[in-house]
Amino acid sequence: MEVLVPFSTDRPKTRLSDVFSPGERESFARSMLADVLRAVIDAGGHPRLLATTDIDPPIEVDTYVEADRHVEADAPANGPLPGDDPFPADVPVTVDARPLTTAVNDALDRHEPTGSEPVAVVMADLALATPEALDRLFRADGDVAIAPGRGGGTNALVVRDPAFRVDYHGASYLDHRHIAEEVGASVAVVDSHRLATDIDERSDLAELLIHGDGNATAWLRDAGVGLDATNGRVGVDREE
Amino acid sequence: MEVLVPFSTDRPKTRLSDVFSPGERESFARSMLADVLRAVIDAGGHPRLLATTDIDPPIEVDTYVEADRHVEADAPANGPLPGDDPFPADVPVTVDARPLTTAVNDALDRHEPTGSEPVAVVMADLALATPEALDRLFRADGDVAIAPGRGGGTNALVVRDPAFRVDYHGASYLDHRHIAEEVGASVAVVDSHRLATDIDERSDLAELLIHGDGNATAWLRDAGVGLDATNGRVGVDREE
Repeated sequence: MEVLVPFSTDRPKTRLSDVFSPGERESFARSMLADVLRAVIDAGGHPRLLATTDIDPPIEVDTYVEADRHVEADAPANGPLPGDDPFPADVPVTVDARPLTTAVNDALDRHEPTGSEPVAVVMADLALATPEALDRLFRADGDVAIAPGRGGGTNALVVRDPAFRVDYHGASYLDHRHIAEEVGASVAVVDSHRLATDIDERSDLAELLIHGDGNATAWLRDAGVGLDATNGRVGVDREE
Repeated sequence: MEVLVPFSTDRPKTRLSDVFSPGERESFARSMLADVLRAVIDAGGHPRLLATTDIDPPIEVDTYVEADRHVEADAPANGPLPGDDPFPADVPVTVDARPLTTAVNDALDRHEPTGSEPVAVVMADLALATPEALDRLFRADGDVAIAPGRGGGTNALVVRDPAFRVDYHGASYLDHRHIAEEVGASVAVVDSHRLATDIDERSDLAELLIHGDGNATAWLRDAGVGLDATNGRVGVDREE
């Protein structure tokens, strides 16, 4: 299955600015992207980066967790992740500087998804995504299969109907259900905490520390971010 | 499967005090409990309320959504939910005023769960729980099956090993994994956004309005709580 992974290189993860510097946020975003690409491939998907600019150097996967890594607050904004294995060279990148909705819809136009050749869209900050969770999404029935995000977003979806269009503004999960209804497409909803957890805000980091085991979780630990259980829900704090 | 549903009648849902009065919070907690009991029964479970005091009048289920209901800010704290069908009289109630962990462990002692006669513990504020989500939990392999809650909690679990004990303090999901390891019990983790979403805080209410269709969602709508899409994630606001 063709799997579009949108990735914005322009000031990613601004809602984490109370925890990380701009350079750190970019490095962290890249570590999450590496995890997502790995999970997509392990779930049998064929990822295609849909990036706002060229990704240079390319994202590297897999060996980051073992790497001897220290996060610098002034890490180069676009620096490589450690690791010896560059991401397989045949992962294609489409550069499209337009807004997310426009870029994804244009890509859907090009691919013309059908039941036998569906197209998936998986967000680059789903650092808790596992092959198992993605497999449930990829196998879900429905002309459109949606993994809703916390707060009404659409974190991942599979499109099998060429008439379906995305609209990522606002409560996109409800909008996508509505759009599917309008074009007569059936909808399946995938009930997954891992896919519902896009890493956007400080409290999301706790989920990564609790449930994650990939690049992004290692990145957080190296950055001194740990669990803080002093409140009702477990949050995070960061060593000074 | 025997399914314990712990329910505290003493000032429930205090973290919603910025939205609801004490009486409203109690009424809302009861509406969520009704949804949970219904889902447990529809998943084939045999619920047993584990309540801190007698529940009087008993929780009623099913007809609330259709009822002509108006939530008063000064609603009687322990008033019945509308509806004609009282909860089936054979749903047993165990009254135990002790802390949650003590009460659940005592119940596990009494039940002595095994592989053929497991015991589940499902929190009373899982208002998004569906029979499908609970069925995945009930069928999960493992001497202990856990549905983690957002923020490191344990929202629902199935125990098949009499040596396992709960500890709901702090990051109980991690503690429960550790406890299982100590007693040599295998662990299965159920990946469900519905079961991960205990309704504790204001932002959780958005999940109910987006994904719910039971008593608690109807209660919220009647209380004037609606979605607010002005921020990054969809939240809620309440009519004055």
